[in-house]
Amino acid sequence: MRVLRPHPLTAQAFAPFGEVIECAGAHRFSINGGSTERYHDLARIEPGRDGRAIVSIFRGQPRALPFAIAMMERHLLGSQAFVPLQGRSYLVVVAESVPGTEAPGALQAFLARGDQGVNYRPGIWHHPLIAVGEVSDFLVIDHQGSEPDCDEFILPEVVFLEFKP
Amino acid sequence: MRVLRPHPLTAQAFAPFGEVIECAGAHRFSINGGSTERYHDLARIEPGRDGRAIVSIFRGQPRALPFAIAMMERHLLGSQAFVPLQGRSYLVVVAESVPGTEAPGALQAFLARGDQGVNYRPGIWHHPLIAVGEVSDFLVIDHQGSEPDCDEFILPEVVFLEFKP
Repeated sequence: MRVLRPHPLTAQAFAPFGEVIECAGAHRFSINGGSTERYHDLARIEPGRDGRAIVSIFRGQPRALPFAIAMMERHLLGSQAFVPLQGRSYLVVVAESVPGTEAPGALQAFLARGDQGVNYRPGIWHHPLIAVGEVSDFLVIDHQGSEPDCDEFILPEVVFLEFKP
Repeated sequence: MRVLRPHPLTAQAFAPFGEVIECAGAHRFSINGGSTERYHDLARIEPGRDGRAIVSIFRGQPRALPFAIAMMERHLLGSQAFVPLQGRSYLVVVAESVPGTEAPGALQAFLARGDQGVNYRPGIWHHPLIAVGEVSDFLVIDHQGSEPDCDEFILPEVVFLEFKP
């Protein structure tokens, strides 16, 4: 049985896959007469060639752990960002494509804190939302264009994501 | 002394100013094999003619109440959305322009629940972020273009926003 364990989510570790949406390390400046700090432009939102950025809420059922990772998906045209709305941790599984192929390479798992969002850049393989513990809402910023934009890849071997809260 | 009191935020009452970002009343459908409900395309994100949608976090200091509303601002080119990240209520003050002028008309105040975001459509006068009670983080989706896009209007008479939590 192949087992995958999450690492803590950091901007540096996640850099091959996209951005971590968080205050730490961000370009920041004071606005509104000093009453507000703006942590500025935290993710590269890609609406696609003829698409537009849209905002939705995903309400995810918690996954039972260990959780079987059997497929991955990707959006080639646009980015997809997830930001937790109730401050709850969640799990992220991503992969780059194997060079010269369309298939996902080695999977990597991350444990996101409840004050961290993620933005998948176009083409990054990722598992659909993995909420943990309770039903959890996420603000999602992705795109809508004139053509469908979701590839799925069934893994040749299921991988079990283990995590002990 | 002119006093303004907030009404509960509803999609209907807020419709002249933009959208309420919330699950209630949204177009929804099941995704991810039934594990996730998608509340779809909740706000009209306007990046402006040559702009792009950007994502930031605003960390707002709580305002002392009653709070003096002395100015309003607007962004003519793009929309601006605020979504609370810690489930805390906040206050919103908005106005349409007086027909035939550039000035804000009658102010309206709303109390947003912690599970409600707002999206100001381009040109709607609004007061900068009014956090209440504690320091509060908001995900902000606005735009960045080639030209500055913030008008300010100093009110001829200060209005006091009253609210008892």
